[in-house]
Amino acid sequence: MTLCHGPKEACGVFGVFGHDDAAKLTYFGLYALQHRGQESAGIVTSTGRSVDEHKGMGLVHEVFNESVLNGLHGRLAVGHVRYSTTGLSVAKNVQPFVVSHAGKTLAIGHNGNLTNARRLRRDLERKGSIFQTTMDSEIIVHLLARNLAGGIEEALVKAVTQIEGAYSCVLMTQDRLVAFRDPNGFRPLCLGMLDGAYVVASETCALDLVDAQYLRDVAPGEILMIGEGGLKSINPFPEHKPTLCIFEYIYFARPDSNIFGHNVYAIRKRLGMKLAREYPLEADFAMPFPDSGNYAAIGFCHESGIPLEMGVIRNHYVGRTFIEPVQSMRDFGVKIKLNPVREILNQKRVVIVEDSIIRGTTSKMRIKTLREAGAKEVHMVVSCPPHRYPCFYGIDFPTKGELIACQHSVEEVRNFIGLDSLCYLSLPGMLEATGIQQDGFCLACFDGKYPIQPGEDISKACLEY
Amino acid sequence: MTLCHGPKEACGVFGVFGHDDAAKLTYFGLYALQHRGQESAGIVTSTGRSVDEHKGMGLVHEVFNESVLNGLHGRLAVGHVRYSTTGLSVAKNVQPFVVSHAGKTLAIGHNGNLTNARRLRRDLERKGSIFQTTMDSEIIVHLLARNLAGGIEEALVKAVTQIEGAYSCVLMTQDRLVAFRDPNGFRPLCLGMLDGAYVVASETCALDLVDAQYLRDVAPGEILMIGEGGLKSINPFPEHKPTLCIFEYIYFARPDSNIFGHNVYAIRKRLGMKLAREYPLEADFAMPFPDSGNYAAIGFCHESGIPLEMGVIRNHYVGRTFIEPVQSMRDFGVKIKLNPVREILNQKRVVIVEDSIIRGTTSKMRIKTLREAGAKEVHMVVSCPPHRYPCFYGIDFPTKGELIACQHSVEEVRNFIGLDSLCYLSLPGMLEATGIQQDGFCLACFDGKYPIQPGEDISKACLEY
Amino acid sequence: MTLCHGPKEACGVFGVFGHDDAAKLTYFGLYALQHRGQESAGIVTSTGRSVDEHKGMGLVHEVFNESVLNGLHGRLAVGHVRYSTTGLSVAKNVQPFVVSHAGKTLAIGHNGNLTNARRLRRDLERKGSIFQTTMDSEIIVHLLARNLAGGIEEALVKAVTQIEGAYSCVLMTQDRLVAFRDPNGFRPLCLGMLDGAYVVASETCALDLVDAQYLRDVAPGEILMIGEGGLKSINPFPEHKPTLCIFEYIYFARPDSNIFGHNVYAIRKRLGMKLAREYPLEADFAMPFPDSGNYAAIGFCHESGIPLEMGVIRNHYVGRTFIEPVQSMRDFGVKIKLNPVREILNQKRVVIVEDSIIRGTTSKMRIKTLREAGAKEVHMVVSCPPHRYPCFYGIDFPTKGELIACQHSVEEVRNFIGLDSLCYLSLPGMLEATGIQQDGFCLACFDGKYPIQPGEDISKACLEY
Amino acid sequence: MTLCHGPKEACGVFGVFGHDDAAKLTYFGLYALQHRGQESAGIVTSTGRSVDEHKGMGLVHEVFNESVLNGLHGRLAVGHVRYSTTGLSVAKNVQPFVVSHAGKTLAIGHNGNLTNARRLRRDLERKGSIFQTTMDSEIIVHLLARNLAGGIEEALVKAVTQIEGAYSCVLMTQDRLVAFRDPNGFRPLCLGMLDGAYVVASETCALDLVDAQYLRDVAPGEILMIGEGGLKSINPFPEHKPTLCIFEYIYFARPDSNIFGHNVYAIRKRLGMKLAREYPLEADFAMPFPDSGNYAAIGFCHESGIPLEMGVIRNHYVGRTFIEPVQSMRDFGVKIKLNPVREILNQKRVVIVEDSIIRGTTSKMRIKTLREAGAKEVHMVVSCPPHRYPCFYGIDFPTKGELIACQHSVEEVRNFIGLDSLCYLSLPGMLEATGIQQDGFCLACFDGKYPIQPGEDISKACLEY
Repeated sequence: MTLCHGPKEACGVFGVFGHDDAAKLTYFGLYALQHRGQESAGIVTSTGRSVDEHKGMGLVHEVFNESVLNGLHGRLAVGHVRYSTTGLSVAKNVQPFVVSHAGKTLAIGHNGNLTNARRLRRDLERKGSIFQTTMDSEIIVHLLARNLAGGIEEALVKAVTQIEGAYSCVLMTQDRLVAFRDPNGFRPLCLGMLDGAYVVASETCALDLVDAQYLRDVAPGEILMIGEGGLKSINPFPEHKPTLCIFEYIYFARPDSNIFGHNVYAIRKRLGMKLAREYPLEADFAMPFPDSGNYAAIGFCHESGIPLEMGVIRNHYVGRTFIEPVQSMRDFGVKIKLNPVREILNQKRVVIVEDSIIRGTTSKMRIKTLREAGAKEVHMVVSCPPHRYPCFYGIDFPTKGELIACQHSVEEVRNFIGLDSLCYLSLPGMLEATGIQQDGFCLACFDGKYPIQPGEDISKACLEY
Repeated sequence: MTLCHGPKEACGVFGVFGHDDAAKLTYFGLYALQHRGQESAGIVTSTGRSVDEHKGMGLVHEVFNESVLNGLHGRLAVGHVRYSTTGLSVAKNVQPFVVSHAGKTLAIGHNGNLTNARRLRRDLERKGSIFQTTMDSEIIVHLLARNLAGGIEEALVKAVTQIEGAYSCVLMTQDRLVAFRDPNGFRPLCLGMLDGAYVVASETCALDLVDAQYLRDVAPGEILMIGEGGLKSINPFPEHKPTLCIFEYIYFARPDSNIFGHNVYAIRKRLGMKLAREYPLEADFAMPFPDSGNYAAIGFCHESGIPLEMGVIRNHYVGRTFIEPVQSMRDFGVKIKLNPVREILNQKRVVIVEDSIIRGTTSKMRIKTLREAGAKEVHMVVSCPPHRYPCFYGIDFPTKGELIACQHSVEEVRNFIGLDSLCYLSLPGMLEATGIQQDGFCLACFDGKYPIQPGEDISKACLEY
Repeated sequence: MTLCHGPKEACGVFGVFGHDDAAKLTYFGLYALQHRGQESAGIVTSTGRSVDEHKGMGLVHEVFNESVLNGLHGRLAVGHVRYSTTGLSVAKNVQPFVVSHAGKTLAIGHNGNLTNARRLRRDLERKGSIFQTTMDSEIIVHLLARNLAGGIEEALVKAVTQIEGAYSCVLMTQDRLVAFRDPNGFRPLCLGMLDGAYVVASETCALDLVDAQYLRDVAPGEILMIGEGGLKSINPFPEHKPTLCIFEYIYFARPDSNIFGHNVYAIRKRLGMKLAREYPLEADFAMPFPDSGNYAAIGFCHESGIPLEMGVIRNHYVGRTFIEPVQSMRDFGVKIKLNPVREILNQKRVVIVEDSIIRGTTSKMRIKTLREAGAKEVHMVVSCPPHRYPCFYGIDFPTKGELIACQHSVEEVRNFIGLDSLCYLSLPGMLEATGIQQDGFCLACFDGKYPIQPGEDISKACLEY
Repeated sequence: MTLCHGPKEACGVFGVFGHDDAAKLTYFGLYALQHRGQESAGIVTSTGRSVDEHKGMGLVHEVFNESVLNGLHGRLAVGHVRYSTTGLSVAKNVQPFVVSHAGKTLAIGHNGNLTNARRLRRDLERKGSIFQTTMDSEIIVHLLARNLAGGIEEALVKAVTQIEGAYSCVLMTQDRLVAFRDPNGFRPLCLGMLDGAYVVASETCALDLVDAQYLRDVAPGEILMIGEGGLKSINPFPEHKPTLCIFEYIYFARPDSNIFGHNVYAIRKRLGMKLAREYPLEADFAMPFPDSGNYAAIGFCHESGIPLEMGVIRNHYVGRTFIEPVQSMRDFGVKIKLNPVREILNQKRVVIVEDSIIRGTTSKMRIKTLREAGAKEVHMVVSCPPHRYPCFYGIDFPTKGELIACQHSVEEVRNFIGLDSLCYLSLPGMLEATGIQQDGFCLACFDGKYPIQPGEDISKACLEY
């Protein structure tokens, strides 16, 4: 285990206060957020007197069933989905993290990554704290436990002023739901209302599914206490310019969500249109690899006039079990998921619209199968600039050594993947396409300007080649 | 149980003769054919001396794992996926159907539906045959068992001349693979080669995944015996005009397959282009409901010049467990799978490109959510004529009473679904778009002209209102 | 698979006619008969209109739970437990064997072994019958199916006059319970009454558990039809001297059962008393290996005046999973189940009272651990004569080559096992101890006089050395 | 949850230092100790660098299999079995309790019960410690964690001088095995050797199974550190008279174990002999209810000359699933496990030899079935005095209100159970029968003289009526 891997999962969180169907709403909310984490799922509920929880490895619909949900009582709930990134995908690391402490129960779900986790944990252990997991969220709970004498609000303020990095969290006490977000606002977190109940979610698509009405985003740096008396907002931080994660727009969030106040689909389409303007190409058709690049491809085709085709067909039944192919099956790893259509590709000049290139290895294999299916020319346009730097704020990019664009020129990348041409969207072009104020984003994965310096151990481990 | 439901599943079959990895190739072949049957899967193999089998309810990747596959020995294999259509989805009905008879083992996988099954079964039972299942394939095996004295070839000829209806089958004896197809050729069946081994599959997409080379289709009426001595073809039927199922092209087969010698994607796209020519519309954009109608939509947009958008986003993680939604969640059943994107739909004139309308109820719910998301006008174009008659040849359409177009005019259907306009592709337009000789199709579900009259019990039960 | 193994399981059967709790009573009845078969269990019930069944591998309490039992409807039930004897312990061989034939359902549970099974099966297959299993009970059902035109009674008479060997069966039609027993009456079968309902069971201990009152045994050769009109008894055989299995008394039946009209415990105790009279010994104490020999040991101690001790302690938690011991653990296979008590054994002269010696290998290992625990002398007395011949009537003795007493003198057996002395009860002593008319038993395993000659294949395979 | 229930389970512990098969030996050791805890089982191993663990609900052979054991690496292991006593039988309470703290791993298995647990836990929580479980063993670990600066030995001494009550523990650090036992020595703990490796176990029967040689008991108050350098013994307590639990001899330990240096079987037999001397009775036979009272019964019969019989037969296949019997089955709860043998009991004067009477309800039901089976007189002799006081040192007796002898005279108990006569062994008779120095036992459950006063909360809750 290296520090730069373990803690860097992406996740989705959801919370409900004041609804008879709190557990079920959370179930459906997590269902809508499943793209943010497929490894594990958990829900914790409270009746005010007792707490129920259920967590497990797997997809939301695998972890829960009707009878399990019926056993999660109370009008208050928090839920979490977690993304599988490392060997540490163990059962005890499933969130929400729950503790019973001095007769009270706390449950926390965390999306993001603390950059000073290692130091905080070491200090706490020296003072005799015993940790149950390797999760950042447990650190937050230990900080709370040592400051509960003055009440939960005071403990929260003390905790958030000690932690650094990215965190969009839902916290459940036995009678309150708390949503809090780091002052940079790296990850999204929004507030909605349903039948008089408050709902908190990573993305608006979760509000849509449960028919909740979007009220507003939880602001960067805000601690939002939700209880019987309604909302109470605390912001213990000095004024601070947010640095939202632009990659949520490009790749991570669901296209039907509104993130940071803007629609993801619309931005992806504009990224594709911008690409078409920056790189005029001659081709027979353009295509995405489903389902990455779909929306940028639509924008690219609209703007360029190049027809859209689906040159590869996705098998919708691909499971997670891996069975070793037989020797004679070439390009198996690609084709089990995406089968090229020879009748469409044969003798054609093709443009692939892609949302990002990380290691380049998957693209290389896919391009090979297109050529074997007869494609005459294969060009690729990418709807963001080259990824050159790792993320320390909750997205699991590989180390610098594994990011192909980190050590290789665009021409070298083109050659490695086996393309006739390769065009990345320019950084100004990307910012302009978002249509949002341009200095409010974290662009560190593109330009290496980190809004928060990571702890020494992290940076050393991850910046190595 | 009514006769018109039970036996009418669609299925996929696969077989291998002469390959060391016969079981694994069959696994991957079934993986590629998963769209033809998601209820159950099974593989049977033979070493010539011993036979192994594994079958189970669920998707191919749920039923099998590496260790199970390693336990399926031999260079000869047949496999089957089955579609869930009725309450009779019980474990004993999982195919391939296997029997040990007089010291020998037979295994059969069947895609299609016998139209004289009831009569054949009654006759056999009167003679003392005991049936283990309710499957048509068992009837074929009992007919074989009563004629084995003269060898398997003679028994097959006697069996196929007694059965009527649709059958594309793979049969495994301990040392031979047999593929046989009814003289009408309702369902597809093709032959390929891989590393010197023969492969039989329902669709070419299964050959593609295992890197087998397509040789030819198994001909309508052909019994193809594959053994150590190579291929032997028998066709015991008098000359006969085939009546291929046109709905395989419109809906059922995978777009990357070639069926009856033609590419499915290309035909679906031409169906969409033909639609655009038959029904000029004014609209802001056209869209499919993913993933039905995708390829017709591409053709429709190419031809009409109307831009393509994805007005609804598909949740890729929808499982099969059903959890009752909470009261306040409107349109839940639709939105759990497809979430409309308000920013794309709002105030827009939308054309839905659909591949078929069966009951109309799903379309009705989906259109409602589009309107709630702000769509100003919603038009629908359908890439085939109205479905007015049930299928007796292996596709599980509902009875006439449930086919909305059977009892209602197009205007009534439009009104029921809640559309601004509704256009079906004309029957001549559909035939022309296929680009294939036009009198070789079964069009019974559109025009009621059944190439083979079903047995009395079937027709009575299914033609009732 | 050799013929002499596969079909020779011992089993228990149970049936109920006319009770609202038919399934549950059968469950408890099988629970009481668990010692007759630990491999699998099954129950089939009928409401007169519909039939429910549940079967599985494992112990009765593992196969069934409350909810499964609640799903077995009807006032008519048959159940079966089966003993694991061979590699053919596969799921499809779990009884009761159920078929749906020409719209009617038959279920049969069989205890015993047909001696002409191979020939009957071959004849039926030649006529086109397809077998689903390798069980004798399926042969009976095929014979019934071919004679149902004249009704079930006529079909039964025709069937039982064709089959030979040992059978104590329960048969369920949709509205009748039939109990039938071979004319030799090898295996027990008794009739009881509970709340006005009829109950049939292999042993009376099953009647005891459900609080049913014992009425009488089903007679050798009797076909007992139980329906709404009450009992009807048919005996299609000419007068015939029964040959009851004496080994049921010695070893197989439960001590609290009455078998063939006499109590098992009392007979076992008398066998032990007879032993003490036949072989006066000097010893410090006598002991059984729990729980075989317990009751003979009590009788032996009563009669001889030698004190009883429990020189080995049984671990009651021994499961069926086998985990390879580590190198250094000597005598592991014995001690995991029975731990010798050094404080009791050390420097003592011990008499082991045993109910039988089959292969001798288990005894050999056990005696070794007694000596290691300090026993000074170890004598063994056995409550029956030497086993020299295989059983063809439903008890799974090994072939002659494996029966140690078949090829070795008593002195050789004593030496092999490592005893100071070894005494078998004499055959006349055994018969006298039963206190029952002495010419009514099958003694074939002791004297080789088979009441029914087995088919050639059986005898050849099993009588080989 | 009441304090007097939760923490009072009986348990078994096992540990190995320095053997290649540490995990497997621990598995077999727990197997032999299964009678001390059937609820859950766990094993933790260490290679010195890494730690593996596996724990689960169920019997030892249900929780572990060969492949799980192969995944538990290292030459150092501790294991634990736990007894199901309360609703708190939850997975997280399965021992050994394991923590990773400041880069090191500790695992502890505890047999006993701390009498000042509540106060210690409250103090630790006030200082910010977060507890994961409700187990006493976690308290010990938190006490260790706060004192690790000075090394594990110092931390252990500090911890054991803070805790009070009964504890026989195995503790694993990454490179040492520690066994420690409270100064009263309530529960047994012994040391053995196998192939040069050290083995620690609750009872000697576990040493026997793995063929380890018994060395000595871990002394009351001793901390035994076992590492590469051999044994190191620390005893931080002032001289202290031990108070061993006499009920281990009477009921709890396995008869083939030597406990506190003496054989359990021999003592039980002497208890029975003493009973015969204290209470001369006239009877036809004496019997135990298997398997409680077996050894006292042997002694009783030896001494009194009354013959031994097994008047009830135990069903060896009784599972843990409970299925509601049908209305008409009287005495079901008793008979499912023990069936009375009418032929033995009818018209007889019977003496039951029992090891203890706790609530009296089970005895009452059993006596009833004996009388229904025809017993003319039923007497009971009990091999210890009446239980009048709860245990606070690790055996789960009920509260005083539930102990029948607490509030009722012997005559009232006799009448409640339905006996002709009832005799308890006298306290002096019991002590004399042990043959051990008579002031070294805890007799609190008989005489209420508690060697350690329990914390206030415990005593209040448990001493109530």
